[in-house]
Amino acid sequence: MSVYSSQRIALIGLGTIGISMAALHLSRESNIVDVFDTRPDFEAYVSKTLPIYMSELSSTINIESSPDSQPPTSLVASLISSGRLRIHSTLESACASATIVQEQGPENVNWKQSTWAQIEAVAPPSAHFWTSTSGIAASTQQAKMQDKTRLLVVHPFNPPNIMPLLEIVPAPGTSAERVEFAREYFSLPGSRHRPVVIRKEIPGFVGNRLAFALLREACYLVQEDVVNAKDLDTILMASLGPRWAANGVFESYQHGGGEGGIGSFLEKLGGTMQTVWDGQGRGNVEGDERTEWKEKVIAQVNDAYGTVSAEQLQVKEARLKDIIGIQMKGYSRDGREV
Amino acid sequence: MSVYSSQRIALIGLGTIGISMAALHLSRESNIVDVFDTRPDFEAYVSKTLPIYMSELSSTINIESSPDSQPPTSLVASLISSGRLRIHSTLESACASATIVQEQGPENVNWKQSTWAQIEAVAPPSAHFWTSTSGIAASTQQAKMQDKTRLLVVHPFNPPNIMPLLEIVPAPGTSAERVEFAREYFSLPGSRHRPVVIRKEIPGFVGNRLAFALLREACYLVQEDVVNAKDLDTILMASLGPRWAANGVFESYQHGGGEGGIGSFLEKLGGTMQTVWDGQGRGNVEGDERTEWKEKVIAQVNDAYGTVSAEQLQVKEARLKDIIGIQMKGYSRDGREV
Repeated sequence: MSVYSSQRIALIGLGTIGISMAALHLSRESNIVDVFDTRPDFEAYVSKTLPIYMSELSSTINIESSPDSQPPTSLVASLISSGRLRIHSTLESACASATIVQEQGPENVNWKQSTWAQIEAVAPPSAHFWTSTSGIAASTQQAKMQDKTRLLVVHPFNPPNIMPLLEIVPAPGTSAERVEFAREYFSLPGSRHRPVVIRKEIPGFVGNRLAFALLREACYLVQEDVVNAKDLDTILMASLGPRWAANGVFESYQHGGGEGGIGSFLEKLGGTMQTVWDGQGRGNVEGDERTEWKEKVIAQVNDAYGTVSAEQLQVKEARLKDIIGIQMKGYSRDGREV
Repeated sequence: MSVYSSQRIALIGLGTIGISMAALHLSRESNIVDVFDTRPDFEAYVSKTLPIYMSELSSTINIESSPDSQPPTSLVASLISSGRLRIHSTLESACASATIVQEQGPENVNWKQSTWAQIEAVAPPSAHFWTSTSGIAASTQQAKMQDKTRLLVVHPFNPPNIMPLLEIVPAPGTSAERVEFAREYFSLPGSRHRPVVIRKEIPGFVGNRLAFALLREACYLVQEDVVNAKDLDTILMASLGPRWAANGVFESYQHGGGEGGIGSFLEKLGGTMQTVWDGQGRGNVEGDERTEWKEKVIAQVNDAYGTVSAEQLQVKEARLKDIIGIQMKGYSRDGREV
């Protein structure tokens, strides 16, 4: 089964990530999407929220579609009447004809293990199994499955309707073909997504490990009164954020080292870097030791930002989308857009 | 002396950062800039490189000026003939009438200490003293000065002609008025810079401490074969880079926690976060222990990026400038630009 042929995707669990994934899969016109969730108002919820994600997606990848020209409810009604979107009341019917089953349920080991065993029993034997978990490895989730070659993590990044990253994390026994299928699916021409295959299961995968490493130091600097939380955010936005949006960390230091690249950089800055590494914050987020920072950080962040309104979030997301739009532009050698 | 009045800035050391700073100060039409460097081809070098930074700056802050309409050498010639730019062959003459002396010399403690003692002897007693160091605290640099209230760090971020951040780091004895003067100078209306005052001297200040914390984990993940260097860069560019360009790390997690803000986020993700923190990479960049990662990282980064050409750098910098341009735009509540 080629990634280029029509897919029939069963989505299990339709929270923010599930709805966002539904919009993504439906943006490919030959796909059929089956959705299942246990919430009582499921159909009304899908009718209300899906159009928001569909219109966001279309404005990003330039599909011809305007939320103004078609009332939101009629968009979902027409997807349903054309058979492209099917709303299910049982797991079994949702999975019955799937080529891909994708799960965004609770982050709970028991729930994942028993749900995958149920899915395996009702889905076609060839169907691909993807979990959107941010923390429970595929090798743990598949404990009650018969076939240990089918399941892999496809971890999106918040907000999933805007962020290009998908971390594809197979279990040691996941078949290479199934990994490649997932990678290719999200790399199709026109896709704004950037799937990356992680070679080994590790807690937090890669994106969150990098984020949590920086966060730990950020909390230490606030705890030590080197800088307050708001000023630390300003520093990040005025330096590392845009740098790493334009180039990764390794490429940046390759440039920073001049002709000798990152090797020269590590030699030149090695002294300062080692001093910083030796003195890094070693706070904890759980337990009773070295958690004093939590109260101070939470108070400063609440003071600085308060409760974020839906309108404020929209403004923030508009900026994020524009930044990602810049990343997707081509640039000629003289720096002009092409 | 108000920051709004004309300043006369003596720049000592005209490498990349010095030239970039010269362009910045000259972009304010009432300033006079005195430059001093020991390189033999100093005047020819300034004539050649300054126009590049002047034109980059003007395109960012919309000053009327086009490098095409005026040949580069004549731009510098006209700045010199109008008395706004003065090229000096001695430290003494460069500093003689300064209201601000700013130093971008070698990152060497002895050089800094003896240079500041010399500057103090020849500059007007009221002049502000700024060092662009990335690693040597003001309290160390001022060891041989008489007056310990005058010197502070003004640390720009690479590339200094594009990056908004300036870390202002006073020594414990630096006067509060001098700190406030520097902060206000870089906050003038129309400035694209974002100065932040760091409250305590600490190795690496804040920006590089955050960067090095993330880098250490990045090197660990490459060393452990979780991901290769190129894919790690892709992950960063497709997730954390744009996220932190749009919002800081604390604000992002305030959003991520929903109504409960960062407090809820730390509760919900605390388990995974603690596991990640307990398992973080603890590599060294100096010494013989835990430095195995260096060979692998350097090889993979060289493989991925090779030597970066001037043309490639221009393309990268164009993207960086566009991202920072997005940050400076206003957004209305419905996400449209205003």
